[in-house]
Amino acid sequence: MRKVFQAELHQVGEQLVEISRLVTEAIEKANTAFTTADTELAQDVIASDARIDFLQNNLDERAIEILALQGPVASDLRVIVGSLRMSASLERMGDLARHIAQLARMRYPELVVPEHLRPTFDEFAEQDIAISRLLTQLLDTRDLDLARDIARRNDRVNELHAGIFKAIAAPDFSGSPATAVDVALASRYFERFADHGISVSRKVTYLVTGEWTVNGDAV
Amino acid sequence: MRKVFQAELHQVGEQLVEISRLVTEAIEKANTAFTTADTELAQDVIASDARIDFLQNNLDERAIEILALQGPVASDLRVIVGSLRMSASLERMGDLARHIAQLARMRYPELVVPEHLRPTFDEFAEQDIAISRLLTQLLDTRDLDLARDIARRNDRVNELHAGIFKAIAAPDFSGSPATAVDVALASRYFERFADHGISVSRKVTYLVTGEWTVNGDAV
Repeated sequence: MRKVFQAELHQVGEQLVEISRLVTEAIEKANTAFTTADTELAQDVIASDARIDFLQNNLDERAIEILALQGPVASDLRVIVGSLRMSASLERMGDLARHIAQLARMRYPELVVPEHLRPTFDEFAEQDIAISRLLTQLLDTRDLDLARDIARRNDRVNELHAGIFKAIAAPDFSGSPATAVDVALASRYFERFADHGISVSRKVTYLVTGEWTVNGDAV
Repeated sequence: MRKVFQAELHQVGEQLVEISRLVTEAIEKANTAFTTADTELAQDVIASDARIDFLQNNLDERAIEILALQGPVASDLRVIVGSLRMSASLERMGDLARHIAQLARMRYPELVVPEHLRPTFDEFAEQDIAISRLLTQLLDTRDLDLARDIARRNDRVNELHAGIFKAIAAPDFSGSPATAVDVALASRYFERFADHGISVSRKVTYLVTGEWTVNGDAV
C-alpha cells in the first residue's frame, strides 16, 4: 500500500514538472509573438493554454483522490496540499502567457511596445523565461540553489516593472494613452508571471525544509 | 467523533463568512477612498488587509489539520478542499480592494478617474460591493438564487470593463497616458474582484449541487 502511495505522490510531482514545462513553452512563444507581431504563434499560445488548464484539473482530481483514498498525514499531506496550490499558480502563469499573446494579436500588425521601451521588455522576457525554466528544474530536482536564483531574478523583475511605470507616468512619455495602457498591462503580466513563479518556488522550499521563506530568506 | 468533525467543518464555513465580511468592508472603504481621495481611509484599507491574510492562513491551517486528523472522504472532503480554494479567492479579493486603495493614495489629492468616466466606476463599485455582500450571504445560507444574482452582476462588470478599455483606446480620449494607465488598472482591479467573486460563488454551487456551473448555468 505504502509503495503504491509513494508512486502516486511521485506521479503528482511529475505532473507538476510537465505543467511547468508547458508554461515555459508558453512564455517563450508568447514573447516571440509579442516581439515579432507573429499572430499565428500568438494563436498557438492561446489555443495551447487549454492543455495547461486540462492538466491542472487532472492533477487536482488525482490529488483529491489521494486525499480521499489514502488519508495522508504529516509531510505527505503537506506535499498533496502544496501540489494543489502549486498547480493553481502554474495555471495562472499559463493564463498570463496567454494574456501576453492576446495583446500581441490585438495590436497586430503593430508591435505592442514602443521602440524605446523594448530593451526593458526584452529583459523582462529573459527573466521570466529563466524563472520558468528554473522552476521546472526546481520541481524536478528540489535543488534549493535554483530557488535562490529565482528569487534574485524576481527582484530584478520588480525593478523593471517599477521602471516601466515611471517611464509611462513621465511627462515626456511620447506614446498615446492607448499605448501607455498596453505597455502597463504587458508589464503587469510579466511581473505577475514572475510573482506566481516565486510563490511556487517558495512552496517547494517549504516542502523541502519545512521553513517558510520570503525572497529566498527563511522567515 | 463525527459530531466534533461536523462542528469543525461548520467552523471553517463560519470563517469563510467572516473573511467575506471583511472583504466587503474593504471594497466599500476602498471605493469611498477612491471616489473622495480620502487618503486616511485608503491607509485603513491597506492596513486591514493583513487581517484578511491572517484569517486566510488560519483557516487554511485548520482545514489541513482536519484533513490530517479526520481523513474526510466524499462530500466532506470536497467541502474542505473547496474551502481552501475559496479562501484563496477571498484573499485575492482583499488584495484587489487594497490595490484600489493604493491607487487612491498614490494620486492624492487628485482623483484617479477623470470626471467623464466616474459614472462607470460608480456602477463598477456598486456591482462589486453587491457581489461581495451577496457572496457573504451565499456562504452563510447556500441559497443558490444569490449565486445567480452574482453571475448576472459579473456579466455587467465585464461589460463595464470592456467599455472602459474602449473609452481609453478611443482617439478622442482626453486624459494623459498616466491617467489612462491608472484608469485601466483600476478597471482591471474592479473586474478581477468580481471575477474572483464568481469563482467562489461557483464553488459554493458545486458543493451544494455537485454540478459545476459557468455563469450560473450548469455545464
